[in-house]
Amino acid sequence: MNHIQSYINEHKNRFLNELIKLLKIPSISADSTYKKDVLKTADLIKISLEKAGCDFVEICETNGYPIIYGEKIIGKNLPTILVYGHYDVQPPDPIDLWHSPPFEPVIKKTEAHPDGAIYARGACDDKGQMYMHVKAMEFMTSTNQLPCNVKFMIEGEEEIGSSNLATFVKSNQEKLKNDVILISDTGMIANNVPSITTGLRGLSYVEVEVTGPNRDLHSGLYGGAVANPINILTKMIASLHDEDNHITIPGFYDKVEELSKEEREEMGKAPFSLENYKKALDIDAVYGETGYTTNERNSIRPTLDVNGIWGGYIGEGAKTVIASKAYAKISMRLVPHQDWEDITTLFTNHFESIAPKGVKIKVTPHHGGQGYVTPIDSIGYKAASKAYQDTFGKTPIPQRSGGSIPIVSLFEQELKSKTILMGFGLDSDAIHSPNEHFGVWNYLKGIETIPLFYKYFTELYK
Amino acid sequence: MNHIQSYINEHKNRFLNELIKLLKIPSISADSTYKKDVLKTADLIKISLEKAGCDFVEICETNGYPIIYGEKIIGKNLPTILVYGHYDVQPPDPIDLWHSPPFEPVIKKTEAHPDGAIYARGACDDKGQMYMHVKAMEFMTSTNQLPCNVKFMIEGEEEIGSSNLATFVKSNQEKLKNDVILISDTGMIANNVPSITTGLRGLSYVEVEVTGPNRDLHSGLYGGAVANPINILTKMIASLHDEDNHITIPGFYDKVEELSKEEREEMGKAPFSLENYKKALDIDAVYGETGYTTNERNSIRPTLDVNGIWGGYIGEGAKTVIASKAYAKISMRLVPHQDWEDITTLFTNHFESIAPKGVKIKVTPHHGGQGYVTPIDSIGYKAASKAYQDTFGKTPIPQRSGGSIPIVSLFEQELKSKTILMGFGLDSDAIHSPNEHFGVWNYLKGIETIPLFYKYFTELYK
Repeated sequence: MNHIQSYINEHKNRFLNELIKLLKIPSISADSTYKKDVLKTADLIKISLEKAGCDFVEICETNGYPIIYGEKIIGKNLPTILVYGHYDVQPPDPIDLWHSPPFEPVIKKTEAHPDGAIYARGACDDKGQMYMHVKAMEFMTSTNQLPCNVKFMIEGEEEIGSSNLATFVKSNQEKLKNDVILISDTGMIANNVPSITTGLRGLSYVEVEVTGPNRDLHSGLYGGAVANPINILTKMIASLHDEDNHITIPGFYDKVEELSKEEREEMGKAPFSLENYKKALDIDAVYGETGYTTNERNSIRPTLDVNGIWGGYIGEGAKTVIASKAYAKISMRLVPHQDWEDITTLFTNHFESIAPKGVKIKVTPHHGGQGYVTPIDSIGYKAASKAYQDTFGKTPIPQRSGGSIPIVSLFEQELKSKTILMGFGLDSDAIHSPNEHFGVWNYLKGIETIPLFYKYFTELYK
Repeated sequence: MNHIQSYINEHKNRFLNELIKLLKIPSISADSTYKKDVLKTADLIKISLEKAGCDFVEICETNGYPIIYGEKIIGKNLPTILVYGHYDVQPPDPIDLWHSPPFEPVIKKTEAHPDGAIYARGACDDKGQMYMHVKAMEFMTSTNQLPCNVKFMIEGEEEIGSSNLATFVKSNQEKLKNDVILISDTGMIANNVPSITTGLRGLSYVEVEVTGPNRDLHSGLYGGAVANPINILTKMIASLHDEDNHITIPGFYDKVEELSKEEREEMGKAPFSLENYKKALDIDAVYGETGYTTNERNSIRPTLDVNGIWGGYIGEGAKTVIASKAYAKISMRLVPHQDWEDITTLFTNHFESIAPKGVKIKVTPHHGGQGYVTPIDSIGYKAASKAYQDTFGKTPIPQRSGGSIPIVSLFEQELKSKTILMGFGLDSDAIHSPNEHFGVWNYLKGIETIPLFYKYFTELYK
């Protein structure tokens, strides 16, 4: 595309300031305390899409937070790209581990980001990456270089399972009709090693509750004589993995896609330093399923992790109590062919079956989604690859990600189109963690690369 | 003693109102937020001892909360009774399970307490039971029936391990010199089945911290590839009991006192209904160490219970995070001959030894204390037994308690005297739980029984 670099250089401060404004709003969808902020963010997205040149933008109400839909249709024979992103963010806690307040963005230089990175919750996931598309759109419309039709669908419930997006997509198939879906909500290997995510893991997220006695008890008077819900919960969770860290839920692996020796060898070629990986996390050893490498464990293998656990006295000092209840939030990452609803059922049945007498069990499914794979021979993937080739000067590496974007498989099912995952974040950007950030270089590089995808996709489509 | 009933009837409303005033102050020693309230309670205790007829009362400063010392010495040839109690209380949480605010006392009738019970944190443990001694003292001095010397030592750190009391006792042996120590901080079987606690379990209370990666991680990108501190913590805790619920810490049982068949048979005679026990707790089964009855499990056997656990995201909704740290508060109840400091060391070494690579472990001892046994052939026990005989019309049953009053063994060691545990609470009084309460009948029955102990102890002493 012409003049893209010069356009970015001319407007980059404004691009940054607009993003910073967006990042200042704590749009935490998981916590209803922030409802006003989430809604305020939705309004801001609507305005930004209008300014970027959409002919039509609307706030679509749902049973939860609204979905912003925008479009610019320039020719019925031209292909249509549907851009998806989300404006909600993860909760920032543990808040005390942030070096600067999560909703007061600051730009700081880092080893991975010598040009500086924006520190804020949502900087990378997904406000920063979503907004690259808005600014790319602005460039193409303001310089009359938009080569095809474009539709935007920006939701506010991605971090809580996109439950209402599913309904919206199912009931708006005509409106959302497209030839390819474009999402930037993933990462790449390194700024000098571009990669495109070709696979996502599915997800099943449940909450479990173990109830023992009908009230908290004095651990001296009852200790050893009644089932302690916390001790029981630890036993039950511990039993979900065997000594090889295989998951013990019957039937859990039945549909797991086993990659061929060749595919695994191909994966193994991606540059990876176990030493740097351990150093970055300050751990003396990695840990996981026997028989698989670190990169296999977090991409092609299903996993089960406790995301939160609580029960009893967790305040200052000591309290000799046996709690009446103990809780845990547990998520399972799934691979292609594992159905998240089947897995949720398998988990529930198994977890209930291993409960000893003396306790009651409640399993509440939170949300879930299927895994997904992008074929690298599709024109969508080819267009993305060429775009990276132009802006990074290197062919991107196709890579399976361990993350989940549950709605991607839903899109394929309901809209019959493939998704291209052009992620510009880095693993070290600490998404979902304290001190989340997004490289300024990556932000601008995304804005530069996206229009080229439009160009090549339109060309290959002909 | 003469006129005790009539004195109680005449003053019972005042006795109740004075206790209620004391219960309104949230003297939570575990939470520094309540420091002012704890100190205010100490002042109130001082005044009440002066009013009750002590000749000398002082607030003794410590490195923590003060100890109130009071005395009335009437003859150097007479025996001296040292009364111990505590004015601090447990934290009230979980607050939402209280039917009335924990520090706004109300009197309600219950099945176990047809004459009504005072509902408030500390009603039974230990403000109510401690204050019985103050009112018994008032009766004896105001009616000139105090038969011996009396000393009071009321502390404010019992619920957090009495660490400063130990120092105080060690450095005030002459001042605290006595012939018997009297404590009401335990319970009895039922209002129509009086019992006296003849044994206490020791305690070792530790806090453990498991650290994995140096920051919270996205469970999709890292799940399955790094040690999840919560999963690891559940595995480590689960491994502390075997399938028979024996504790697996090497050496844990080495010094455990094994009771004879006869002693266990004697214990078995105490009235106990397993059905009522399960019904009261709403559990379908009890749970504990194979080979022992419920009453043995919670009295003569050592135990290990998690009192609190936390880590990761515990807020509303779902967060797909792998926490950097996970924590648990763990307490072990010990039996006579188990040294709490040895056990704390055994726990620490074992817990560190079972940690897998990829995590760091920190074990912090909170506090602890030794177990204790009162000989039933001592004049102290005999005097107590006669007192109950008079006021309950029945000989009390000697009973081992599962609870711990760590300083009791310290008293024996430092002051060379035995402790009599005259408890008037019931197991159903929910101490350390929401809706703690203390029967009005029990409160007044304690005030009636205590002076008789003074009388009989003085007689038997001669």
